[in-house]
Amino acid sequence: MTVFTPIIYIRAVEKFEVTILGCGSALPTLRHNGSAQIVNIREKYFLVDCAEGTQVHLRSNHIHLSRMNTIFISHLHGDHCFGLPGLISTQGLLGRTAPLHIYGPEDIEGVFRPLLDYFCNGMEFEVVFHPVDTHQFLPVYEDRSVTVYSIPLKHRIRCCGYLFKEKPLLPHIRREAIEHYQIPVSQINNIKAGADFVTNEGVVVPHSELVIQREPPRSYAYCSDTMFKPENAELLHGVNLLYHEATFADAEEKLCARVFHSTARQAAQMAQLSHAQRLVIGHFSSRYEDENILLKEAQSVFPNTILAHEKMTITL
Amino acid sequence: MTVFTPIIYIRAVEKFEVTILGCGSALPTLRHNGSAQIVNIREKYFLVDCAEGTQVHLRSNHIHLSRMNTIFISHLHGDHCFGLPGLISTQGLLGRTAPLHIYGPEDIEGVFRPLLDYFCNGMEFEVVFHPVDTHQFLPVYEDRSVTVYSIPLKHRIRCCGYLFKEKPLLPHIRREAIEHYQIPVSQINNIKAGADFVTNEGVVVPHSELVIQREPPRSYAYCSDTMFKPENAELLHGVNLLYHEATFADAEEKLCARVFHSTARQAAQMAQLSHAQRLVIGHFSSRYEDENILLKEAQSVFPNTILAHEKMTITL
Repeated sequence: MTVFTPIIYIRAVEKFEVTILGCGSALPTLRHNGSAQIVNIREKYFLVDCAEGTQVHLRSNHIHLSRMNTIFISHLHGDHCFGLPGLISTQGLLGRTAPLHIYGPEDIEGVFRPLLDYFCNGMEFEVVFHPVDTHQFLPVYEDRSVTVYSIPLKHRIRCCGYLFKEKPLLPHIRREAIEHYQIPVSQINNIKAGADFVTNEGVVVPHSELVIQREPPRSYAYCSDTMFKPENAELLHGVNLLYHEATFADAEEKLCARVFHSTARQAAQMAQLSHAQRLVIGHFSSRYEDENILLKEAQSVFPNTILAHEKMTITL
Repeated sequence: MTVFTPIIYIRAVEKFEVTILGCGSALPTLRHNGSAQIVNIREKYFLVDCAEGTQVHLRSNHIHLSRMNTIFISHLHGDHCFGLPGLISTQGLLGRTAPLHIYGPEDIEGVFRPLLDYFCNGMEFEVVFHPVDTHQFLPVYEDRSVTVYSIPLKHRIRCCGYLFKEKPLLPHIRREAIEHYQIPVSQINNIKAGADFVTNEGVVVPHSELVIQREPPRSYAYCSDTMFKPENAELLHGVNLLYHEATFADAEEKLCARVFHSTARQAAQMAQLSHAQRLVIGHFSSRYEDENILLKEAQSVFPNTILAHEKMTITL
């Protein structure tokens, strides 16, 4: 028995967006910046990789550096991390005081700390490096909105991707249920957390009747750089959006394997094996002046594929 | 007595150009890149300073990285050198084999060598660092076309500018003189180098009658970053083009001195004291959305002043 007519609440979904700052590969071109992207989860900004020039690309996307407290670096190749010294020293010049947390392969502090000591001496904020075991699928970061896991990848050097798993939102309580059952304020959080409500008359009103469930939690996986690694499919199962590197087309498959990268087709196979909802491919080799060849090869396996491009924002 | 009617030779002047890749200051903006410029002397390219993003700005100016064998760094603030790791590793990826020579303050190798050892391991070319004594005016580089001198500047850390002094070109020998006096090929280089010619009859034909003098040698001085340092005027005497930092306007004079920078007016005073032919000002603070205030203040002292801007090429 449902007491209330179902009401459709038109509610803004909590934000979960990915903005591409750069989706080129090692050789910089005028068409693509090096790897960097912003994951915005409920207005909290996470930077994933930080190629040279990232601080300027953030600026051209109107993202204020001070909004960024957490950075995830996949691996220590220059096209994924050479933007860190500039980004950090600019934050110092801008008077940042909040600590900046940087997650990355275990060498990251050893490589960058001496630079920071030299160039950012006297900065009023702390840079905290968090070494990530790139061989493990493990939670590396957590707050009330999201858990971020490392995804072991297979590249020439230690490298991991990152899986952003949104935490479930508590359901909304039906306002008319509060009135009808005279639910006291003290019970509201319990009900949101899953409790039933017992009226003064001893009637048990089940939880499901009192709340409106929220959207199911979403997830985003960033996989760059890596060769085809089908054993990751289970870790990525059902991901809402998969960003996967697609450095080369089929014609370069041999070269691709030799340099531990993926073809567009392999990226699509990963999306298919993982039952991903959508795939966005990036990390394009500079040899392609038109990446539609990559898009076509990927779509032949996984139709719901798009090409990344700079300044693109994808809403989950 | 002049034997020959003077002939005006319209000859292409040997190239001496400065191309601005970036003329902003420490805080990057969308209007200006960090400091970097190319000095092209007789088709030899010298890079002066190398802010983050320089490799891409070179590309957008159609300057091939392989043309660059020599880099001069003024000082070790990020906005003058954070582009080095990316520039160097890209050259490695492109298969460079020729050594790359980098001149800069004495710490430069200690700061960058560990990074290169980590990121550029296995590169097929050598990076040779040449420490420069930033307190001395000394020749630091020389080839057959140019001598480059360090210019001691006054900044918060060790810092020097660079003076590019073209070597005099040997005069052209008058073709009609060769015929008239039957000058043997063996004598031509001697005459170009300054010798007179003695005919078979023992007549001495003075050097000046046999040659057409070339354009006088030119010079270019790069002075950034520095506070006003009038004692440098003598070193820069008669320079054809002076690039001088002009971070602030008069209104910020106190701040300017505190952070060891120059106002536009002081840049102009340096040009005036040095009897420079032309002044180009740069290293603009990010606070100016329109640098014409800097231009006006400079021109009130030294009219032949222009504002630097990205992609500007100035021919000497």
